[in-house]
Amino acid sequence: MPNSTRMIVFSGTSNIGLSEGIARHLGIGLGDVKISQFANGEIYVRYLESVRGADVFIVQSICGSINDALMELLIMVDAAKRASARSITAVIPHYGYARQDKKSAAREPITAKLVADLLSVAGVDRVIAMDLHQGQIQGFFDEPVNHLTALPILADYFSSLNLENCTVVSPDVGRAKVCKKLSDMLGADLAIMHKERPVHNAVEVVQVIGDVSGGTCIIADDMIDTGGSMIASVDSLMQAGAAKVYITATHGIFSPPAFDRFDSAPIEEIVVCNTVPIPPERQNGKIHVLSVASLFARAIQNVFNDESVSELFDPDFQL
Amino acid sequence: MPNSTRMIVFSGTSNIGLSEGIARHLGIGLGDVKISQFANGEIYVRYLESVRGADVFIVQSICGSINDALMELLIMVDAAKRASARSITAVIPHYGYARQDKKSAAREPITAKLVADLLSVAGVDRVIAMDLHQGQIQGFFDEPVNHLTALPILADYFSSLNLENCTVVSPDVGRAKVCKKLSDMLGADLAIMHKERPVHNAVEVVQVIGDVSGGTCIIADDMIDTGGSMIASVDSLMQAGAAKVYITATHGIFSPPAFDRFDSAPIEEIVVCNTVPIPPERQNGKIHVLSVASLFARAIQNVFNDESVSELFDPDFQL
Amino acid sequence: MPNSTRMIVFSGTSNIGLSEGIARHLGIGLGDVKISQFANGEIYVRYLESVRGADVFIVQSICGSINDALMELLIMVDAAKRASARSITAVIPHYGYARQDKKSAAREPITAKLVADLLSVAGVDRVIAMDLHQGQIQGFFDEPVNHLTALPILADYFSSLNLENCTVVSPDVGRAKVCKKLSDMLGADLAIMHKERPVHNAVEVVQVIGDVSGGTCIIADDMIDTGGSMIASVDSLMQAGAAKVYITATHGIFSPPAFDRFDSAPIEEIVVCNTVPIPPERQNGKIHVLSVASLFARAIQNVFNDESVSELFDPDFQL
Amino acid sequence: MPNSTRMIVFSGTSNIGLSEGIARHLGIGLGDVKISQFANGEIYVRYLESVRGADVFIVQSICGSINDALMELLIMVDAAKRASARSITAVIPHYGYARQDKKSAAREPITAKLVADLLSVAGVDRVIAMDLHQGQIQGFFDEPVNHLTALPILADYFSSLNLENCTVVSPDVGRAKVCKKLSDMLGADLAIMHKERPVHNAVEVVQVIGDVSGGTCIIADDMIDTGGSMIASVDSLMQAGAAKVYITATHGIFSPPAFDRFDSAPIEEIVVCNTVPIPPERQNGKIHVLSVASLFARAIQNVFNDESVSELFDPDFQL
Amino acid sequence: MPNSTRMIVFSGTSNIGLSEGIARHLGIGLGDVKISQFANGEIYVRYLESVRGADVFIVQSICGSINDALMELLIMVDAAKRASARSITAVIPHYGYARQDKKSAAREPITAKLVADLLSVAGVDRVIAMDLHQGQIQGFFDEPVNHLTALPILADYFSSLNLENCTVVSPDVGRAKVCKKLSDMLGADLAIMHKERPVHNAVEVVQVIGDVSGGTCIIADDMIDTGGSMIASVDSLMQAGAAKVYITATHGIFSPPAFDRFDSAPIEEIVVCNTVPIPPERQNGKIHVLSVASLFARAIQNVFNDESVSELFDPDFQL
Amino acid sequence: MPNSTRMIVFSGTSNIGLSEGIARHLGIGLGDVKISQFANGEIYVRYLESVRGADVFIVQSICGSINDALMELLIMVDAAKRASARSITAVIPHYGYARQDKKSAAREPITAKLVADLLSVAGVDRVIAMDLHQGQIQGFFDEPVNHLTALPILADYFSSLNLENCTVVSPDVGRAKVCKKLSDMLGADLAIMHKERPVHNAVEVVQVIGDVSGGTCIIADDMIDTGGSMIASVDSLMQAGAAKVYITATHGIFSPPAFDRFDSAPIEEIVVCNTVPIPPERQNGKIHVLSVASLFARAIQNVFNDESVSELFDPDFQL
Repeated sequence: MPNSTRMIVFSGTSNIGLSEGIARHLGIGLGDVKISQFANGEIYVRYLESVRGADVFIVQSICGSINDALMELLIMVDAAKRASARSITAVIPHYGYARQDKKSAAREPITAKLVADLLSVAGVDRVIAMDLHQGQIQGFFDEPVNHLTALPILADYFSSLNLENCTVVSPDVGRAKVCKKLSDMLGADLAIMHKERPVHNAVEVVQVIGDVSGGTCIIADDMIDTGGSMIASVDSLMQAGAAKVYITATHGIFSPPAFDRFDSAPIEEIVVCNTVPIPPERQNGKIHVLSVASLFARAIQNVFNDESVSELFDPDFQL
Repeated sequence: MPNSTRMIVFSGTSNIGLSEGIARHLGIGLGDVKISQFANGEIYVRYLESVRGADVFIVQSICGSINDALMELLIMVDAAKRASARSITAVIPHYGYARQDKKSAAREPITAKLVADLLSVAGVDRVIAMDLHQGQIQGFFDEPVNHLTALPILADYFSSLNLENCTVVSPDVGRAKVCKKLSDMLGADLAIMHKERPVHNAVEVVQVIGDVSGGTCIIADDMIDTGGSMIASVDSLMQAGAAKVYITATHGIFSPPAFDRFDSAPIEEIVVCNTVPIPPERQNGKIHVLSVASLFARAIQNVFNDESVSELFDPDFQL
Repeated sequence: MPNSTRMIVFSGTSNIGLSEGIARHLGIGLGDVKISQFANGEIYVRYLESVRGADVFIVQSICGSINDALMELLIMVDAAKRASARSITAVIPHYGYARQDKKSAAREPITAKLVADLLSVAGVDRVIAMDLHQGQIQGFFDEPVNHLTALPILADYFSSLNLENCTVVSPDVGRAKVCKKLSDMLGADLAIMHKERPVHNAVEVVQVIGDVSGGTCIIADDMIDTGGSMIASVDSLMQAGAAKVYITATHGIFSPPAFDRFDSAPIEEIVVCNTVPIPPERQNGKIHVLSVASLFARAIQNVFNDESVSELFDPDFQL
Repeated sequence: MPNSTRMIVFSGTSNIGLSEGIARHLGIGLGDVKISQFANGEIYVRYLESVRGADVFIVQSICGSINDALMELLIMVDAAKRASARSITAVIPHYGYARQDKKSAAREPITAKLVADLLSVAGVDRVIAMDLHQGQIQGFFDEPVNHLTALPILADYFSSLNLENCTVVSPDVGRAKVCKKLSDMLGADLAIMHKERPVHNAVEVVQVIGDVSGGTCIIADDMIDTGGSMIASVDSLMQAGAAKVYITATHGIFSPPAFDRFDSAPIEEIVVCNTVPIPPERQNGKIHVLSVASLFARAIQNVFNDESVSELFDPDFQL
Repeated sequence: MPNSTRMIVFSGTSNIGLSEGIARHLGIGLGDVKISQFANGEIYVRYLESVRGADVFIVQSICGSINDALMELLIMVDAAKRASARSITAVIPHYGYARQDKKSAAREPITAKLVADLLSVAGVDRVIAMDLHQGQIQGFFDEPVNHLTALPILADYFSSLNLENCTVVSPDVGRAKVCKKLSDMLGADLAIMHKERPVHNAVEVVQVIGDVSGGTCIIADDMIDTGGSMIASVDSLMQAGAAKVYITATHGIFSPPAFDRFDSAPIEEIVVCNTVPIPPERQNGKIHVLSVASLFARAIQNVFNDESVSELFDPDFQL
Repeated sequence: MPNSTRMIVFSGTSNIGLSEGIARHLGIGLGDVKISQFANGEIYVRYLESVRGADVFIVQSICGSINDALMELLIMVDAAKRASARSITAVIPHYGYARQDKKSAAREPITAKLVADLLSVAGVDRVIAMDLHQGQIQGFFDEPVNHLTALPILADYFSSLNLENCTVVSPDVGRAKVCKKLSDMLGADLAIMHKERPVHNAVEVVQVIGDVSGGTCIIADDMIDTGGSMIASVDSLMQAGAAKVYITATHGIFSPPAFDRFDSAPIEEIVVCNTVPIPPERQNGKIHVLSVASLFARAIQNVFNDESVSELFDPDFQL
């Protein structure tokens, strides 16, 4: 019937597993789109079904070959715009470049803002993202941003473990605020680590503010990349007398040599979400992956239905 | 001589003392501008000297009657643009609305971004600001932002006091990162406060992570507003055994009843900068005001001379 | 039900009486929004009901604390945009800064245009205004502007008074065009006042072009501010032999010392609309206030229904 | 020498005489540009000298074949932009479509604003215009507008005639404000004409407010188009007892049948400026043309030199 | 009924015949709009029915008085925007200035891009065009462009003629690609003409690559303007031994002296579409005009119904 | 000395050899910039010298890891903009995605336009490019584009070979226009190849329009990618009796299996430019690489000096 609005969810190639999970929760199939690469590396996109007048949601994590993933998303947005989609929502479970969100030295870019500008000029009308490195990234967009958080999912999981004498540990002073939220959700204590250099030119040492001896520690960050500083944190906690250490983050990037490092480290479990795809062979051991598909599905459904997104997701937990 | 570039520094009405200090350090007088208010509250601006082809710097803190100060700045920018200034730099020692930099609940604005957009559309080409609530606010602008910090000035002052057994205390987990920088500059320890609710429905209590007993504490924040939470922090530190407590912040807003509160509190000294004007009668007692005029003057001079701003200001101290 | 469009009318704080009147005429309640001010003067806004997908109308006169009122409106627009409103209409019964609509001297701003730009960048999709100082202000917007006029309401009222030998008087040559319209609607004569300086350095005197002796005069302007020039006009008309003088304007700003001035002046009645709130204690004497609520309500209803606004309001009377 | 700024003045084809006059006053030749028309009416432009890095001034009245003139100007701007001009100033002695500056009926365009937007998007950095129909048109631009007036030139000329018992007459209430300025400059009286319909359905008659009997009248408007209403005004003044009638306007458009009408009318002289070209054969009789070339030349020179334009042109006379 | 979307098709004045044909195929009447010209050449537009909330389609070929036609279209778009149309589609059967689509010499404009920018800034949301000189012009727009082609209509017609031994001839190397498509559709051979200068300073001669002797040639171009080069091509083909020559193009501009030239040339038939109006008296002889009204009608209907446009028009034939 | 403009040339990582060549011709060193990649693939950029007030030229071919190269360029532009460069010129010897310059099927993107938009929003002020796939890509930018061509360099080289009985062959009808130019420069003949399908369902065969038997053929294209169609063209020419075949293109992309294919093909020589880096080990055999460094150096120098670029490069040869 003409003029009735349709919802179509398309997936880029960076995280097809999550996209399929989202579609499954929505009770629909993924939209039909051809995405290929020419011999010289150029990405080619063509929608194989009409998007005219439809509310289009494009699910793409900016991860893996990070620039390819970003460019693929931009091209998909451009194609949807030129094919007369009614609205285009970029669903970005992991927003790459999020850490480059301010100039921390002279003559640096602010690449997280650049990415927002690229999405805007390509034609995005709305963004749904999760656990951005800093909530201020919302303000890099003129378009509405729905900022979801996986904290309740992580908290539910850790609650189910019935850990005793539990402390949430912030790996540095900058993440203390989010760790505070998780510790509140778990009814756990809070500790904060920071690096210190006792006297000039001495070796930097990691200090732990707060008492962790004999207890179970959960180091919580927004993302795990190469794991180098995480390993150092674990060591410091063990030295400080921690009994067990868990690691958790929304985004498990696991750039090399992360897997190798974690294999041999004294860590109980590494708990991440599926915003970045984890190879299946890595998921049956120490690494536990929680799905955020239903959360994204509900956000998409509510956006499409013009219902409040916030009523589903406790705003107190928004970063 | 035609086509040679001139620099003119104009001052809005919100912080004339600082503007005059800046001009003095530049060895020039402030530009001649008429700013008045009609009976109905409308602001009227007219430049009384030609700005055609000049590099115009407008110094205005967004404070006091905060919306009047902002609107005055916007109107000054508009007038300079229409009078064919070559470039317009907004020099904003205190950037009001900086705390509203993200949505922390549904259906909130991001007013710090709105302010950036208002400045852009009015015609600003560059911004010089100081100790923004979050460095990410730089990314709210498409225009270049020079983000100065008063930390070295504050550190110099506290160093000159030769405080013993000194700990920099972050008033909450969110400011821990900046406090870490100040503690590094002072060679001091770091402690972090956070609020906790031992059991559900119980009264919230402030916890101190780190040992402060018997020492001198410096609570450091980016701004002091009504002083309510500061007073609570001081109390907690005293209970935790602190010997002496100093308070410091770049921006001393001192909204009522701040002065009353601080008068009677067990605080050694309150150290702020002159980014927000402090009534002279308040400056001879407990409140000590440091001038940032020379810092802004050097930034303006270097911007005008196309010299690096970063070489003057250690980027490691940039927030 | 999803995807059906809703209309929600929110009110800023500058003219709640009119907003309530509009809502009453629409048969709805005002939308639920929290507007408050922090101790430092920052305005905080949060919508307490979902606006996603809704057609949002924000009623706010730019008057009173004029910059606060404007900033409050801008923040409300920003919050509605970020909360995914389908469209945002700024309903501005009194558009402050309207008189600063051109450069009348070098290096002045054009603040009425700046205000339009601020509204655009904040995210306004449409404007409904009334009796703008000059109709050209419509062109300051790229968005559609519905420009209502209170002239028929004023004319109806004066017709009901059955004034005899009636002349509409323009207080200066610039308002002659609008006064001509009112005189045509009333079937009255037209006179025009202008200032003259018989010889150089002599005192300026007000001249009346047209015969007013023995009759009833209605001085009509778009707004009454401090009333100073109005009083002078009344004096001149009395000297020219007028029997009675009425004053009328759409916008009764009454900046001090307007009320004092009018109290003692030989004026029959001062007739204004409620686009700017008049204290109730001022409305029972010489000042008569007409409501424009039904006019705005019909405009909002028709905009929402995609019906013509012009068919309700005789375009011949549009300024 | 590299990087030294050059000024080049190009002329469109609509008013070459004035362009040459301007160049003569600047002591330079007009820039070399090829402007031609293809058989199908498309305009073709190519600059025959480099404009890279230069301050380009394009003189073009929007008159004659008005849409051709406008499109030619837009194409010239586009070509200059793509050829890397440092800045582009549109010098528009007569701004066509200026009368369509607001919606006076529903579903009308605001073409004067559209023209401003077209100039902006083509790449104009600054506009120099003269006696715009309404000064508010300045606010249609985001770019700086220098708004010149020919009033002093017209006043000088009429002063030189030593007219006795002289009254400046506004042809309708809308032009009263400008006529007031001219009458002040001449030390003359002011009268205002307006149309009236004594009883419903009766024939409209022109009324004169003010006494003109026995004196010399100067009807002043911003432009003379077909002359129809001017002739009616002249008749009314003669009936009201005027001894002699002059007509003046900045812009003499003289659309047919203006020349025929004026030939046979009891008018002493018609005084206009050369913002619109008048055929030479029409300039030796009743029509007197004053040149504004030196005024534009000085404005261009001062803009190029970054000197104030306002100091040359009394701001009190700016519309 | 409120909020149900309506479709209204308005026609500019440049090609009313085609507009009426489109409306007939849609089974509706053309929308009611007043378009007139003032004595000074200014175009005036007013919609005589409400367009609020409607999907407006404006049919206007940019041809005839080409700048008048363009300006009329822009003004119609501006008026529709300010009258709150829900969406505005410019239906441009012939896109004037399309040949000026790149800089082929220094300091030229790119007028085809300028025209796209003018349409965008006026407020166009979508464009429907036909056989643009180069398909790349689509990319000059940020808005969606539906690019129709008349090739199937032309091919159907030539197929119906049952021409024997038929060769499609490209008049120059630049049009070879489109001619290849037509030859494929007709199952005909392909030949390509190009100009050559055997030795320096010799007269340029037209060469034919491919064998045309004894056969029927169809010279195909996107537009026929003055016909000069077409006539030269016909002569060359006759010299090369062609038996019969047809000429075809989508756009028959026929600028003088095209009709005179073709009258006396040895051409069987000239086949064009009605994207540019051809005087009826020219259509009964050598010139055959095919209607594209049904094609445009189907495109408009599908756009309005949010159905795919591509499914109607074989994308393989899109230029 | 303050305010004197400096030129700094920075190089991205995609074609450092060409960048060094350009700098050598300019007599300067490349600017000092740190470009690195984080473990997760994010690119990091920091200028190690001040760019404030400088004219910055960033040389980056969009090739190799094409999306990495593009993103690196965008980030470099962003960093330069935020570091207050006076102007930023993107020097793009090979513009990737250039072939995706129009929709050739429904629901495709126009990625070449998207790339232009990304560069614009990042902050590019000017583009210098070479032999774009279509000249219309210039019009995708609002900023000035200097479009260089390597045709004279290629022509000079082939002239130096003194080839006899030489024909330039266009590999398909779409490139015929550029091949015509090269053949004119060489005084050579022109032939055009196109694909044909004699009867439905038969195998497609390549046809050659023009006589090539016994002569030397130069197949000329804008770029060589995998070489597949080139090899087919060579085969067809050999079958058509060509004695020798050369291949040439500005951009030698050589995506796999290009090198393998060409190794075994009956080709005299493959002549390309260094807009895309060719591994040195590939340059000593069949593949001959010509440098365009001096051409880019002169363009940069003239842009910086505000001298005409066109006077250096014959506009007749511009594509």
